[in-house]
Amino acid sequence: MAGNEAGSQFVARLTEVAAATESMLDRLLSPAPVPYERSRPERLIEAMRYASLGGGKRFRPFLVIESATLFAVPLERALMAAAALECVHCYSLVHDDLPAMDNDDLRRGRPTVHKQFDEATAILVGDSLLTFAFDILARPETHPDAAIRVALVLELARAAGLGGMAGGQMLDLAAEGRFAGALPQLSLTDVEELQAMKTGALLRYACAAGAILGAADTKKRAALDRFGATLGEAFQIADDILDVEGDPATVGKATHKDAEAHKATAVAILGVAKAKERLFGLVAEAEAALAPFGADAALLKEAARFVAERRA
Amino acid sequence: MAGNEAGSQFVARLTEVAAATESMLDRLLSPAPVPYERSRPERLIEAMRYASLGGGKRFRPFLVIESATLFAVPLERALMAAAALECVHCYSLVHDDLPAMDNDDLRRGRPTVHKQFDEATAILVGDSLLTFAFDILARPETHPDAAIRVALVLELARAAGLGGMAGGQMLDLAAEGRFAGALPQLSLTDVEELQAMKTGALLRYACAAGAILGAADTKKRAALDRFGATLGEAFQIADDILDVEGDPATVGKATHKDAEAHKATAVAILGVAKAKERLFGLVAEAEAALAPFGADAALLKEAARFVAERRA
Repeated sequence: MAGNEAGSQFVARLTEVAAATESMLDRLLSPAPVPYERSRPERLIEAMRYASLGGGKRFRPFLVIESATLFAVPLERALMAAAALECVHCYSLVHDDLPAMDNDDLRRGRPTVHKQFDEATAILVGDSLLTFAFDILARPETHPDAAIRVALVLELARAAGLGGMAGGQMLDLAAEGRFAGALPQLSLTDVEELQAMKTGALLRYACAAGAILGAADTKKRAALDRFGATLGEAFQIADDILDVEGDPATVGKATHKDAEAHKATAVAILGVAKAKERLFGLVAEAEAALAPFGADAALLKEAARFVAERRA
Repeated sequence: MAGNEAGSQFVARLTEVAAATESMLDRLLSPAPVPYERSRPERLIEAMRYASLGGGKRFRPFLVIESATLFAVPLERALMAAAALECVHCYSLVHDDLPAMDNDDLRRGRPTVHKQFDEATAILVGDSLLTFAFDILARPETHPDAAIRVALVLELARAAGLGGMAGGQMLDLAAEGRFAGALPQLSLTDVEELQAMKTGALLRYACAAGAILGAADTKKRAALDRFGATLGEAFQIADDILDVEGDPATVGKATHKDAEAHKATAVAILGVAKAKERLFGLVAEAEAALAPFGADAALLKEAARFVAERRA
């Protein structure tokens, strides 16, 4: 993180957004059932809360809220969309951590859901968080205009599904040689497609959600879409570089995992120096995409720099 | 099945609906990506098709379509909602069959998805089918009015999630003594709640979806809701009776599973004779709920009788 004033403003805002998202999720996922529900089974809601509360940078909620702010969307509405997106992000972590997937025991320094509870509960927690995201988006509190709510639903389903995040996770498992018995040869284009789907689609959606909530015109919608797509690519390259150069203590998870798995990443294909060049090119591109918003987009620009410069 | 004319009409219509649903799902889940998708990863779409095509009575789609027909909803629209609901039903089967859940190797006489492919693929297939359901419902082809589409989304999310099907599956695992180490003592009310959530919620949604698509007035909406809820309860009791009395060869799966697991079911609590009495009471109640629709609801009435009398 750059230590300049804009950087500090960004960190302060990210902290604020994280607290607001936490409190929105805490409210939405209250242990007591709401009137239209028969019950909220205790073990399930407890595990859903464990999976979604008390951790995470809440970077996707930040993007939703800052994008929405460009159009003066009321904070309560943006927080609903942000909470929905965070439910999808958390569901994906719970399922990805499962023994049959990445088999991780720890997440943010705590036991993963299937370790803390059990595998069946973890599967149901993921399913329920994913389903709950659409419940949240479809509620009138998210936006009084049904056309806007249904657009949020459609775009989230596409970002998270077969042609987005879930599809990207499938490509990622294939890239590890899970199904063929041997590591496939991935081109840079293959790697970019995998990452655009696995990580990029939700980051891109975060920015699109702000534009949808704000009923943005075509030009501004396209600008935020380009920002989100570029940011997503930068995010993944920065992650790959961290895996090579990061200190496990700072990063908070094991590093050098990609190289040990001989996994195709942009860094493995391009080398660290060229990957960094590309990363800073992407940040410049992301900042340029925000031109139509002028000074209003200062914090989003900081976010792009944060993504590239983060050490954890 | 009664061999009378209405019964034959019902069977003919169920067969027709199954074919139309199959062909809609086949089209929606085509292997080729649609323009807004980067790709449809081959193994994932293949396994999604395996999980959702080529089998099943398509009883939920039948209920959507027949309920929608009461309001002269165009068939193409009802088929979209039916396909979405069937995606949710199929996702639930794929995840329920997983080793960590019910650990089933066979489904409709074929290897389950995790047997035919692998566990990671099965998890992603379930996630992707669930997500895809919301993609389908949010498309303009489902209904030109966004308020109707978003109502379909909201109700499906609630029927399938924490307070519905997924919550019911959690209660079912708990009822098997999975978490406490011992079989809990379930009252008839507990069992009814479990079943209303696990099986009832989606059947009820099927009928509600027709009313939503048809912009039904409050009275007709409530009538279909009551029909769906009663039908759902009858469905589960009939299933429990089949488990006690059914011939495994006809039923197509092992019977006496509940008794062997000492599982609390309405039949275990009431005994077969009283359970049958209740079942036929529920069918009469379901038929009575359809009174506002007169002769138009003849096939839905047949459906209720079919549920009670089925041998498989």
